[in-house]
Amino acid sequence: MAYSKHEDGLSRRDFLRGSALLGAGLTTAAALAACAPAPAGGGAGDGGAQSAVDITWDKEADVVVVGFGGAGGAAAVEAAKAGAKVIVLELTAEGGGSTAINGGFVMLGGTALQEELGVEDSTEEFGKYLAAAAGGTGNPDAWKFMADGAPALYDWCLEVGMTFDKTLDEGKVGGGRPGLGLAYSGNERAREYAAIAKPAPRGHIVSPEGTGAGFFRPLKAKSEELGVELLYETTGQHLVLDDTGRVVGVTASDASGKTLNIKALRGVCLTAGGFGMNPEMMAAHFVYDVTPAYPTAAASENGIGIQMGLEIGADTFGMSRHALGSALYGPQGSELLKGVLVGPNGRRLIAEDEYYAFVGRAICAAKNGFIIADETINAAILSMGPKEPLATAASIEELAAAIGVPPTVLASTIAVYNEGAATGEDPEFGKHAEFLVPLATAPFYAYYNGPEGMYYHTCGGLKINLDAQVLDLAGDPIPGLYAGGRNSNIAYGYYVGSGSSMLDVFTFGRIAGQRAAAATPVA
Amino acid sequence: MAYSKHEDGLSRRDFLRGSALLGAGLTTAAALAACAPAPAGGGAGDGGAQSAVDITWDKEADVVVVGFGGAGGAAAVEAAKAGAKVIVLELTAEGGGSTAINGGFVMLGGTALQEELGVEDSTEEFGKYLAAAAGGTGNPDAWKFMADGAPALYDWCLEVGMTFDKTLDEGKVGGGRPGLGLAYSGNERAREYAAIAKPAPRGHIVSPEGTGAGFFRPLKAKSEELGVELLYETTGQHLVLDDTGRVVGVTASDASGKTLNIKALRGVCLTAGGFGMNPEMMAAHFVYDVTPAYPTAAASENGIGIQMGLEIGADTFGMSRHALGSALYGPQGSELLKGVLVGPNGRRLIAEDEYYAFVGRAICAAKNGFIIADETINAAILSMGPKEPLATAASIEELAAAIGVPPTVLASTIAVYNEGAATGEDPEFGKHAEFLVPLATAPFYAYYNGPEGMYYHTCGGLKINLDAQVLDLAGDPIPGLYAGGRNSNIAYGYYVGSGSSMLDVFTFGRIAGQRAAAATPVA
Repeated sequence: MAYSKHEDGLSRRDFLRGSALLGAGLTTAAALAACAPAPAGGGAGDGGAQSAVDITWDKEADVVVVGFGGAGGAAAVEAAKAGAKVIVLELTAEGGGSTAINGGFVMLGGTALQEELGVEDSTEEFGKYLAAAAGGTGNPDAWKFMADGAPALYDWCLEVGMTFDKTLDEGKVGGGRPGLGLAYSGNERAREYAAIAKPAPRGHIVSPEGTGAGFFRPLKAKSEELGVELLYETTGQHLVLDDTGRVVGVTASDASGKTLNIKALRGVCLTAGGFGMNPEMMAAHFVYDVTPAYPTAAASENGIGIQMGLEIGADTFGMSRHALGSALYGPQGSELLKGVLVGPNGRRLIAEDEYYAFVGRAICAAKNGFIIADETINAAILSMGPKEPLATAASIEELAAAIGVPPTVLASTIAVYNEGAATGEDPEFGKHAEFLVPLATAPFYAYYNGPEGMYYHTCGGLKINLDAQVLDLAGDPIPGLYAGGRNSNIAYGYYVGSGSSMLDVFTFGRIAGQRAAAATPVA
Repeated sequence: MAYSKHEDGLSRRDFLRGSALLGAGLTTAAALAACAPAPAGGGAGDGGAQSAVDITWDKEADVVVVGFGGAGGAAAVEAAKAGAKVIVLELTAEGGGSTAINGGFVMLGGTALQEELGVEDSTEEFGKYLAAAAGGTGNPDAWKFMADGAPALYDWCLEVGMTFDKTLDEGKVGGGRPGLGLAYSGNERAREYAAIAKPAPRGHIVSPEGTGAGFFRPLKAKSEELGVELLYETTGQHLVLDDTGRVVGVTASDASGKTLNIKALRGVCLTAGGFGMNPEMMAAHFVYDVTPAYPTAAASENGIGIQMGLEIGADTFGMSRHALGSALYGPQGSELLKGVLVGPNGRRLIAEDEYYAFVGRAICAAKNGFIIADETINAAILSMGPKEPLATAASIEELAAAIGVPPTVLASTIAVYNEGAATGEDPEFGKHAEFLVPLATAPFYAYYNGPEGMYYHTCGGLKINLDAQVLDLAGDPIPGLYAGGRNSNIAYGYYVGSGSSMLDVFTFGRIAGQRAAAATPVA
């Protein structure tokens, strides 16, 4: 708990009590988190605070969901299935959020689809991969929790009406593909992670779209079928608390700019996505010294859901953690992977065939990247389609000079790489033999692969527990408030692979809806 | 402004107005930031909220300063000099914070001391270095502001009673040294930064201690001389706001655990340091996949000052940005600098003679580091004192195998390094000739230089403007609240050099005290 290192052992709720003694005219910060009036008999002046008028509610539901993407859809469906009256507020005219525009993967292990396709996997190996790939700043318990729930989550996806083709591709696949059902979508086969967890294709690709649209379409249909009230072009603005500090509603702004006060009898679910489209929040939290160009986030990812929580003293987790991808690699990247990726100093950055979010992170850390190819590899690259090299030269040294990389360094980098490639080994990074081809035939080519080519999305958000309850600065759940998806962060660390975000989006979106629907209604 | 991407154009203050319409019993999050009661005539139930009792104040001052280190001392001195009655709350029995235990540098440019010692420098070149070294996530305007104020800040240091010896050492110096007045304390001479700004020694070392104790001793004496009331073993707990949302005091806990309510007529200055000693905050915000072992922060850096601001909806900046140093380098590191620092893959990480916070960052990013030496360099290293190598071997390849680094890679790294060193050049990173010695004489040695050897301190904190006003989530100043030092962050980015923290600690600590003392008192 954030307070544990303080003299102060009091929790947020202690303050709600304590603050009453201060009366309504002046109050401590913690009391602000509830605006607590004095209790009966609390003193002459306190009586006033008790005679509070009610806010004028324009609408009322058991559960109010803020943001209608993958997490909001999962929350709405689960709350409605539990019998709750649900209202969803969505900024856009149709909903979908970043889920509807993503690569179509949900990363799962130990599923019926894997079994049908003869893939050996288990929730244990899946959980080990996730915890390792998230790195030292991730939350292994949360990843284990998600991995353990993966088989049931797959079944839920089918129940909701999502479909997955019974086809498997074990090649490197960086994004969804219509007709493909299961593929590798992370860094499972990279030397470092294969040593920790048995690799398996875990990227479950939704059909027929082969993009995230296939996740949202059935979620939206199921929400409508269950009678969820969907308010489009309406955005959540602020949370409303009662005098005990419980979240009891939200204020929203509708298409006409009119403010709506919406009461939530049982709970509010914040599922409004990340903050990739909020430049001020990015400037405050982005950690690399470069600017990736392409957010893989919906335009609606403006951080409002995170701000709504921050306003009432919610804590955050990992706001500086992002998914960063090299756009040059990816679905059709396999021939490019035979090139050698070097940084500004002429040394390699990573095994070129690692999952491209790991590649992207390495490029951002190095501030720049170049892919070096020889004539043979370049012919293969061009066979995939036209591509303009940054420079061409008769020798590696001349190529290095042309792109501003130290020639003797690049020459030694390629020499060591070629020596290994000739024997099918990459001692430096463990790149797989299928992509190891010596760069031997002049002329040589350099392709630019700098940070401007990166895409990104945010992983940080409001700190939640395994019950999707939003935690305050003292580590206590804020009554009546739940969150899921990129509006929250319980697990990242590094981004672990395509479909990992949908894993946590569905897992905690569902739990948020379930817990909110099951909460005791406000008086 | 954080809200600028929202439908919602309202500021925090707008809500203080708007919220009144909601009455006191239920309130929006933004209203919580003020706990605003209804205005007269606001409705039947509102009258009560207006009849608020006052908090019982135990003490009162114009300015209340939370935390008595460098920033708190600067704030207290400036506020008292302006004629304000000042109360300082300090967790420890003597004060000092991280300032009193630091390396004794304040980084300044264009000062009288530089001129007296014949050093050519200007605020322009200083500002260019600071902005470049802070990197793409830093705030160049804030660094320029601090650089422009540096000559006057040096004069203020003398006024307060700090002294600086009139001696210059242009060698690499990683920490203060009694008797030394001016030295290089950052990365000014590294290839990348020397190309941007003219290098100059800017680390002004306080005497006679040659450590930060020399900063705090006179600040404490001056505070006492000016009649500042110093409450030791008393820690700030929460901010107190009035019904307009202005900060009007703090609650504190004294040595006996008794709560004190202290009224601040003009303002509160949060100067309680960073959060390096708060494991939960570190886990939420630290960004590297390793754990540095040694906080260069006082035990009192528990994050309470940052939490006090967060509780009332203050924004933060760069919470993920830290100073990271390699403890293996530093004051007596010069012979070690002749070694070659490589990562787990056998490639160099950085020019070994760069400022050790830059070296430390490179090691943390690579997750591990080893210093490779030959017999000649090792003899020089041992001449500095006993040191246990991790491994010794007759060849580079055998040494590599012994430490788990790919032998062919390390061999090529050393070969390229030696080739350059023989001609006094380091094409890869631009290490200076004085440290470039070929590794040619067997046996060879490897010294461990991994993250466990790192020290760190936090750079992130409450977001402030150039007037040291704490900003809320909408980007508006929170009335009555100021912050400085590591309790705040306006400029980092990367850590830029020893003494840069004291530059911003003194600059914004002073401004916080000045602005608070000049504020209109509460009714």
